[in-house]
Amino acid sequence: MQTLWDYRYAQRTQSMKGSAIRELLKFSERKEIISFAGGMPAPEIFPVDKFRKACDKALRENGAACLQYGSTDGYLPLREMIAHYATRYGINVTADNILPTSGSQQALDLIGRIFINPGDRIMVESPTYLGAIQAWNAYGAEYIPVPFDEHGMITGKLEDRLRAGIKFIYVLPNFQNPTGVTLSYERRLHLIELADKYGVPIIEDDPYGQLRYEGEHLPAVVVLDSQTRSQETCYSGNVIYLSTFSKTLAPGIRLAWVIAPTEVVQKLILAKQGTDLHTSTFNQIATHELAKGGFLNEHVKLIRKVYRERRDVMLDTLEEHMPQGIKWTHPKGGLFLWVTLPTDLDAKVIFNEALKKNVAFVPGAAFFAEGGGHNTLRLNFSNAKPEKINEGIGKLADVIKNHV
Amino acid sequence: MQTLWDYRYAQRTQSMKGSAIRELLKFSERKEIISFAGGMPAPEIFPVDKFRKACDKALRENGAACLQYGSTDGYLPLREMIAHYATRYGINVTADNILPTSGSQQALDLIGRIFINPGDRIMVESPTYLGAIQAWNAYGAEYIPVPFDEHGMITGKLEDRLRAGIKFIYVLPNFQNPTGVTLSYERRLHLIELADKYGVPIIEDDPYGQLRYEGEHLPAVVVLDSQTRSQETCYSGNVIYLSTFSKTLAPGIRLAWVIAPTEVVQKLILAKQGTDLHTSTFNQIATHELAKGGFLNEHVKLIRKVYRERRDVMLDTLEEHMPQGIKWTHPKGGLFLWVTLPTDLDAKVIFNEALKKNVAFVPGAAFFAEGGGHNTLRLNFSNAKPEKINEGIGKLADVIKNHV
Repeated sequence: MQTLWDYRYAQRTQSMKGSAIRELLKFSERKEIISFAGGMPAPEIFPVDKFRKACDKALRENGAACLQYGSTDGYLPLREMIAHYATRYGINVTADNILPTSGSQQALDLIGRIFINPGDRIMVESPTYLGAIQAWNAYGAEYIPVPFDEHGMITGKLEDRLRAGIKFIYVLPNFQNPTGVTLSYERRLHLIELADKYGVPIIEDDPYGQLRYEGEHLPAVVVLDSQTRSQETCYSGNVIYLSTFSKTLAPGIRLAWVIAPTEVVQKLILAKQGTDLHTSTFNQIATHELAKGGFLNEHVKLIRKVYRERRDVMLDTLEEHMPQGIKWTHPKGGLFLWVTLPTDLDAKVIFNEALKKNVAFVPGAAFFAEGGGHNTLRLNFSNAKPEKINEGIGKLADVIKNHV
Repeated sequence: MQTLWDYRYAQRTQSMKGSAIRELLKFSERKEIISFAGGMPAPEIFPVDKFRKACDKALRENGAACLQYGSTDGYLPLREMIAHYATRYGINVTADNILPTSGSQQALDLIGRIFINPGDRIMVESPTYLGAIQAWNAYGAEYIPVPFDEHGMITGKLEDRLRAGIKFIYVLPNFQNPTGVTLSYERRLHLIELADKYGVPIIEDDPYGQLRYEGEHLPAVVVLDSQTRSQETCYSGNVIYLSTFSKTLAPGIRLAWVIAPTEVVQKLILAKQGTDLHTSTFNQIATHELAKGGFLNEHVKLIRKVYRERRDVMLDTLEEHMPQGIKWTHPKGGLFLWVTLPTDLDAKVIFNEALKKNVAFVPGAAFFAEGGGHNTLRLNFSNAKPEKINEGIGKLADVIKNHV
């Protein structure tokens, strides 16, 4: 249909592209599909009943506040609770350092809005989280990719890049999306040392930190940065830390948070005002009601048990079925693992053939900010049940075998 | 605190300003304040119990879907319901023309994102809705203001301005925020005629359309535009129409919608993906559960009754107490009326003195995109109870009397 809007799009709109993943999710909603595509939690262990009771209590006791406009800053008891848990994890902050957001995607967007000028260079892991690239492309960001190995971002390759002028470094240290790889303790320290040397701040995105299935918890980059700077380990403010209720409670409520210096929080609040006024008061109050007694700490134990089993099934099945020449990562937590095919094999070809057998995944190229990765793919192991993982990986291996 | 972020803000961040209203809301949260400042619904008539039951049902019957990621497009049954009601009001659209957003503020932001290049000129009523200015300033918009009288935007003054190059026209035809004035039927037709003549599309923002307390419902601009173009009154696509559940259900759930040509909806979806992935699935499903049987049509009758009484109390009290030389509008619906002081009186002076007497309102200057309006102020009549309105207007009149 021809309308008066047709020739009126802004310049930035011409370059907007849909996320490959969001497009793929449409396939994966088909019932017959075994999907390793999205980053979806296992719906059968959502704490539906607990959340329902929390909503009920919030509305019975605090109904008018739940339904009324709230301040852009967010619901104070929620911010205090988040600050309390953060402090327990070694991030010594108060409620004034916390901004609740409508999912971490909004946090990424707001960060882009207040920090990124067109042409600014952001240092990212290669591959990196697609949602960050999508958010920051809107502000004209450019990307300086850093390659990874089984210990995460190769910090030995940082220094030349840091000297080339970087606005900030974006890192997902725990069970990275898409690779599943964890940044080692030594590299965390190295990253901090180099960031400090060149005066470059860091965005630490940590949606999966609590979903560890083996090995010891590693201190967050934000914690190590503060420890190296002060004896009291006050929050240094040089690392902005993002986390979310999407993986420990549920993504459908769209609730996440930013931890940042108070000055940055104030700027994010200004940006958020113009964007959506505030995050749902009801969702904030209900989530606080559910989480305040420590329920999520208990619930995360169930999530870990279920996802660990699924990860193990996927690793075992890959081991059993995949032909020689195919490599994959061994994530110690999170939702994803990363498969590397022989260099002459295109994951999109495999994708199309797998889809005919009702198996979906995400071809890896989408995760490379500056191109490449045609022979890689991301597999999610949290959403499908073990028997489906077994079946789906078997089918995927059959498709790949036809090509190697 | 000095941090590495200090000198890294983007250029656009330097010009970000907080909304005067959001700042004022902090005052008005103090219990002793009688607030005519915000645009807050009356919390005592929120349908808390009905909403609680809808949440309960949604989570019992559809819990996993409520808590899981959803598509950026929005929850299909909600979109279908909105399309159904829109069609009943003469906007003949399908679910593909509907995008649920996280409040109308997000709709304004996304529209800015896909349409506004820096320097683009938007025609706005003068004064106009502050949230639109705040959203579009982020994209570098400029504004061409059109003065109003008791019949709304003076369309006789449009033509010169339209010839000067306008990206789109932004209009709130019903019980406008901040003036409370309604665009007359004749001017609606005139607006459409001129917009068509110069090929300029329209954004129609209609949060209050259902809150009419006297007189006949006027057809929406989008409806008239379609009627003048086709015998079948198909949706012409030249008017993008915004509305919301904030005023008929509750603002705390952050749920509104855009009606637009499918091509525009697709672009808005792309923009929304990068911004917050999607609006809370839970809030969409629960709201659909509550609204699908027509409950809001019933509930709006109660809202109209309560707000009509409050409006009448405010008008009567103004009549009784205000000194000569003070004028105000007589809104036929909505939440606001608009007061004009003598030209030598500054509403900010009155504001500071009124606040000492625990009465708050919004000085009008904030609503003028291009300056002016220092002797104007906006009064909200939906939030305070009648006896408080009486008391507050009395105090406000006392303050003003000291100056005239």
